Amino acid sequence: MPSKPYVRPDGRKANQLRLVEFTTDFAPAAKGSVLVRMGRTRVLCGVTVEEAVPRWMRTQKVLGGWLTAEYSLLPYSTGERTSREATAGRVGGRTQEIQRLIGRSLRAVTDLDKLGNRTIWVDCDVIEADGGTRTAAVTGAYVALRLAVNRLLKDGVLAEDPIREAVAAVSVGMVQGHALLDLCYEEDAAADVDMNVVVTASDRFVEIQGTAESGPFTAVEADRLLALARKGAHALIQAQAHALRRK
Amino acid sequence: MPSKPYVRPDGRKANQLRLVEFTTDFAPAAKGSVLVRMGRTRVLCGVTVEEAVPRWMRTQKVLGGWLTAEYSLLPYSTGERTSREATAGRVGGRTQEIQRLIGRSLRAVTDLDKLGNRTIWVDCDVIEADGGTRTAAVTGAYVALRLAVNRLLKDGVLAEDPIREAVAAVSVGMVQGHALLDLCYEEDAAADVDMNVVVTASDRFVEIQGTAESGPFTAVEADRLLALARKGAHALIQAQAHALRRK
Amino acid sequence: MPSKPYVRPDGRKANQLRLVEFTTDFAPAAKGSVLVRMGRTRVLCGVTVEEAVPRWMRTQKVLGGWLTAEYSLLPYSTGERTSREATAGRVGGRTQEIQRLIGRSLRAVTDLDKLGNRTIWVDCDVIEADGGTRTAAVTGAYVALRLAVNRLLKDGVLAEDPIREAVAAVSVGMVQGHALLDLCYEEDAAADVDMNVVVTASDRFVEIQGTAESGPFTAVEADRLLALARKGAHALIQAQAHALRRK
Amino acid sequence: MPSKPYVRPDGRKANQLRLVEFTTDFAPAAKGSVLVRMGRTRVLCGVTVEEAVPRWMRTQKVLGGWLTAEYSLLPYSTGERTSREATAGRVGGRTQEIQRLIGRSLRAVTDLDKLGNRTIWVDCDVIEADGGTRTAAVTGAYVALRLAVNRLLKDGVLAEDPIREAVAAVSVGMVQGHALLDLCYEEDAAADVDMNVVVTASDRFVEIQGTAESGPFTAVEADRLLALARKGAHALIQAQAHALRRK
Amino acid sequence: MPSKPYVRPDGRKANQLRLVEFTTDFAPAAKGSVLVRMGRTRVLCGVTVEEAVPRWMRTQKVLGGWLTAEYSLLPYSTGERTSREATAGRVGGRTQEIQRLIGRSLRAVTDLDKLGNRTIWVDCDVIEADGGTRTAAVTGAYVALRLAVNRLLKDGVLAEDPIREAVAAVSVGMVQGHALLDLCYEEDAAADVDMNVVVTASDRFVEIQGTAESGPFTAVEADRLLALARKGAHALIQAQAHALRRK
Amino acid sequence: MPSKPYVRPDGRKANQLRLVEFTTDFAPAAKGSVLVRMGRTRVLCGVTVEEAVPRWMRTQKVLGGWLTAEYSLLPYSTGERTSREATAGRVGGRTQEIQRLIGRSLRAVTDLDKLGNRTIWVDCDVIEADGGTRTAAVTGAYVALRLAVNRLLKDGVLAEDPIREAVAAVSVGMVQGHALLDLCYEEDAAADVDMNVVVTASDRFVEIQGTAESGPFTAVEADRLLALARKGAHALIQAQAHALRRK
Repeated sequence: MPSKPYVRPDGRKANQLRLVEFTTDFAPAAKGSVLVRMGRTRVLCGVTVEEAVPRWMRTQKVLGGWLTAEYSLLPYSTGERTSREATAGRVGGRTQEIQRLIGRSLRAVTDLDKLGNRTIWVDCDVIEADGGTRTAAVTGAYVALRLAVNRLLKDGVLAEDPIREAVAAVSVGMVQGHALLDLCYEEDAAADVDMNVVVTASDRFVEIQGTAESGPFTAVEADRLLALARKGAHALIQAQAHALRRK
Repeated sequence: MPSKPYVRPDGRKANQLRLVEFTTDFAPAAKGSVLVRMGRTRVLCGVTVEEAVPRWMRTQKVLGGWLTAEYSLLPYSTGERTSREATAGRVGGRTQEIQRLIGRSLRAVTDLDKLGNRTIWVDCDVIEADGGTRTAAVTGAYVALRLAVNRLLKDGVLAEDPIREAVAAVSVGMVQGHALLDLCYEEDAAADVDMNVVVTASDRFVEIQGTAESGPFTAVEADRLLALARKGAHALIQAQAHALRRK
Repeated sequence: MPSKPYVRPDGRKANQLRLVEFTTDFAPAAKGSVLVRMGRTRVLCGVTVEEAVPRWMRTQKVLGGWLTAEYSLLPYSTGERTSREATAGRVGGRTQEIQRLIGRSLRAVTDLDKLGNRTIWVDCDVIEADGGTRTAAVTGAYVALRLAVNRLLKDGVLAEDPIREAVAAVSVGMVQGHALLDLCYEEDAAADVDMNVVVTASDRFVEIQGTAESGPFTAVEADRLLALARKGAHALIQAQAHALRRK
Repeated sequence: MPSKPYVRPDGRKANQLRLVEFTTDFAPAAKGSVLVRMGRTRVLCGVTVEEAVPRWMRTQKVLGGWLTAEYSLLPYSTGERTSREATAGRVGGRTQEIQRLIGRSLRAVTDLDKLGNRTIWVDCDVIEADGGTRTAAVTGAYVALRLAVNRLLKDGVLAEDPIREAVAAVSVGMVQGHALLDLCYEEDAAADVDMNVVVTASDRFVEIQGTAESGPFTAVEADRLLALARKGAHALIQAQAHALRRK
Repeated sequence: MPSKPYVRPDGRKANQLRLVEFTTDFAPAAKGSVLVRMGRTRVLCGVTVEEAVPRWMRTQKVLGGWLTAEYSLLPYSTGERTSREATAGRVGGRTQEIQRLIGRSLRAVTDLDKLGNRTIWVDCDVIEADGGTRTAAVTGAYVALRLAVNRLLKDGVLAEDPIREAVAAVSVGMVQGHALLDLCYEEDAAADVDMNVVVTASDRFVEIQGTAESGPFTAVEADRLLALARKGAHALIQAQAHALRRK
Repeated sequence: MPSKPYVRPDGRKANQLRLVEFTTDFAPAAKGSVLVRMGRTRVLCGVTVEEAVPRWMRTQKVLGGWLTAEYSLLPYSTGERTSREATAGRVGGRTQEIQRLIGRSLRAVTDLDKLGNRTIWVDCDVIEADGGTRTAAVTGAYVALRLAVNRLLKDGVLAEDPIREAVAAVSVGMVQGHALLDLCYEEDAAADVDMNVVVTASDRFVEIQGTAESGPFTAVEADRLLALARKGAHALIQAQAHALRRK
């Protein structure tokens, strides 16, 4: 139980999201794209379609399609320059973890059988990183995917809609004994517990990733964080729907 | 709610662990080592000590020590040969995710300041993989770490014990509507939800990693799985203590 | 001499640039940034500053600072997905050629001695690629550099302005016997000769890169192309100045 | 001719092997496996079978099967941690030399034609390294191969036994003028000449690798070392046969 | 306009080439080869033929053949040792730029359709580097290509000659206000402008690569340099013809 | 015992070397260099000197200097093109084995203490490969080393001659039951046993590397091959001395 009140750096309430904004079709050469902004965090998400499936599916004779994601921090997104992984020649562990998370989150709401023999690629590049880039990426990626699938349906490439429901992600965490929604960078760095939660429109979990480096957390705290995350995710799902309707 | 009973491949009850066994000091050149066995899954864990800290700590002038982990599947551990990542020239995403998990889990119960200016390396190599290799690795790694720290204390290298409490990990999952403890490979492949949970002796969570590729899960299911995981982890912590006493 | 008139895909005159647009400070975490648009081609340019110089300068005891550039095609910028070089694990020849060109172009108008013991990094990522991405990158990179240097001067990090004059780049080419300015992708693919030219505000060349894969070109053609490029570059330098004044 | 007597670190006679021990089927998921111990040196050898041949055989239309080996030092096997080659991203020269030696040694006693269109993989991972890891790997690898082939014959995968005879390897060396059998690490580091010899049950050589970094050796010395190696190898071949009979 | 006369390090006139020498068939296992010498610069060029085309041609169903080049500095060619790129594990930007230049230059005079379904590889390795290695490589590569094609025509592998005309390359530059032909290393390091020009026997340009790191150049200077380059290139084309006749 | 006579492809006697030729100072920018030819096999060897020792020597505080070698097959040396290892991004096992052999062979006759705090690099590049490239490389590398050391002594860089004696290498092998000296490619491919032997002027062995892939060999055969190798090596050492005197 927190002994003293906590003032968030940007004055938000503990259970309040940052300002969310979606600029759709930001990269017109992509099949679907969005520039998503959550507070100062900005991520550019773009979808491309490849008329083939990965080799492991062909080898193992798995039918249907595939969906996969890639993620990067643009070098200037972090203020202090972050080296390009292309130059380093290898994709780091944190990046791989995030791209696997984005891929799993979208696959969980997608019927891969309905994609046919093709791969959907979702690319998420961070333009500014102020905490929550992986959750912003999932939330934006859903919008870009929805736009791309709409186009594929309209063009007759897909016969049936493969997307079952919307999905969004949000971070929650314990900072100085307070359960907070949607952590900015400063809060993220100070958090004792950090949890990224992916939730569907039907109020079910796709992913729960809770981590305590500086101090383990109790079952009661876990419960409070999960409840907070569900509320935040639903607000994001509404914002997604709004942006897509506006199109 | 499951409509029909489920019989586990090895006849266990839903809330029953597989046979756990620790062979301590299996690799005598290591500072601490253990061969951990959970059912057919076998992981060899070894600890070495380096009298230096990683470059990022020196650059950022972070004081204290560091603890990091590496993980691999020995090629024959999976029946069908798994290629060596050394030969491929890159460490895959799954491997990186697991080694980051092991490292975070042990750091969460370790006071890095008490390590002094040194790095503890924990290596986990899977000899046989029948599900739950990452959780077996965490559980075994704690024992190897405890043995190594005991030796460092005895040799006067460390003045104070940096380990705050024991830690263990276990998998839980939903299979055909049943919440099961400690999934073997066959169950893991069939699970709708798969959760890896890291718990301390003081009954707190260090990590919760729940994933639903084939079907999102409800808050009620999450609760049941977390409760099951806590019970399983405590049984493992008892087994660790028993193996360490025997020494 | 062309035997028949040529109609450009977008109706431009032979000596007409595409629509140019600069959105400054697009990535606020960068020291300077701009989203540059030339027709459908869009490139995001961001500048970061590192308080150190490359190892070869330290080894060879070269005084002053350094400026270097990196470039990438975002995967969806090309319609058909272009693989990330981070995933491939190596930076391709075309990319290296372009990043070397951008770096040389900016260094040619910068007094490296006045940078002090630091490195300016310029990152150019292509959001949509419709021809001329390398020249758009140079033209945009100058604006981002100017913005970053303004900030460094204002903050007292730099005492003197290291930038000597503005620089811009443009492509020219021979298509069906016509000398054309600022080729779009369709024209670039059809060109017999393709030339990228980098020009300073004082009407001098920094780079001339003329290439004929499908048919060598005469000295007369070279002259016409260079004259066209100079005119185009000056129009771009005016547009840069306008965008910077608006700030 | 040595001027004074030499006492071996572990009190052995000059022509005496270290204690040899084979624990068969140590890694049950492998087709054949053994944990071989020679004194303090321990190597885990496992065999897997792939139903395909390498690309160069298909390209060059070479018939029959293939057999290849991989080798690694587990990081803690050397006391001071040895970095994983997977993390370094490249397999070092010493490792490649050893895996080529193991592969050649086993192929020399195997009729590849009788393997059919498949590849036998032999993996050797060193758990503790006290000198002679490559020769222990060859000696253990033969046992693992024999066990795997027995299983393939029993399961009807192979119609005829492809193994022609047993093979074993041992190191010999000149230390302070004495010809010694089966060098431990301390002796290996002090040796003027170091020779690894691979011998078959029919008393023929498969490999002779003699090296003098700190002082060339005479033809007389070469003769004495080769004779010693043959005796040692035959004792190992007997121990192999004993371990295999016990099965 | 230069204010004072300039004496070249080796006493040449401003418009004079260094001594040029071609030793044909230097590497008899190659289909065609030449050791080209320009002053102290020596480059070994060899041609091999592969009975297949690159994957991108097969994928994009491009008909005809392909021609590609590789380039390296032998480590001792530069006095101070230059590391092998094989050891570094990646091909540097300068090397890639040069090999792309050599490839484009030769392709510009080759009718790829007449090559049939095969790839011509041209390898250029620098034995001594005293400036102008890339232009010497192009000039030598043409001779090696001509020799290889002669052999392919004689052997009936090719039905028609795919080479349209000869091609040669030369460097020019501005040093202390003087336009100089064929720069040696010392001049190259001192040049304000450095230009590499590739010219065909029909006096047309294939490539113009002019670069000014230390000071932009005017259109008048560009004109003078291009004129000088054309003269130098024609002298080289005569020397090529002479060497080929001698055969 | 061979049942029928064997005629060598080039008509040589069983104990006869191919024509040996050394062209000294072939690459004048190197500190010492030689083009060595043994029959059709040609290898270019060059020596450079670095005023520093490898990191492992500094870390382990080993005094004195170091000598190391690198080796490559130029792509056209093998007729069918061999890919560059720089392009592949990794140095293959065979190459690493050979460069380690060359380095060890030269270090065995060099007093590293007398080199001072510097590294001698020996680069061997094969221009034509007709068998025996590694032994030709060792034999040529000694000549290049001797030339470089002569220059270092003359220039006063070295005070004392670090070379103890000459060294040369030669291959021997069993072909159809005949022991042959100095195998050409065709013989090498047909050999049952292949042995590379490095011998010093004082008639002692530095390396014996005997390999039998297609049939183990007896102690009697080993003896005959070693005797033949010693004779061949001494003829090569005479040829080296002759080439060096001529200088």
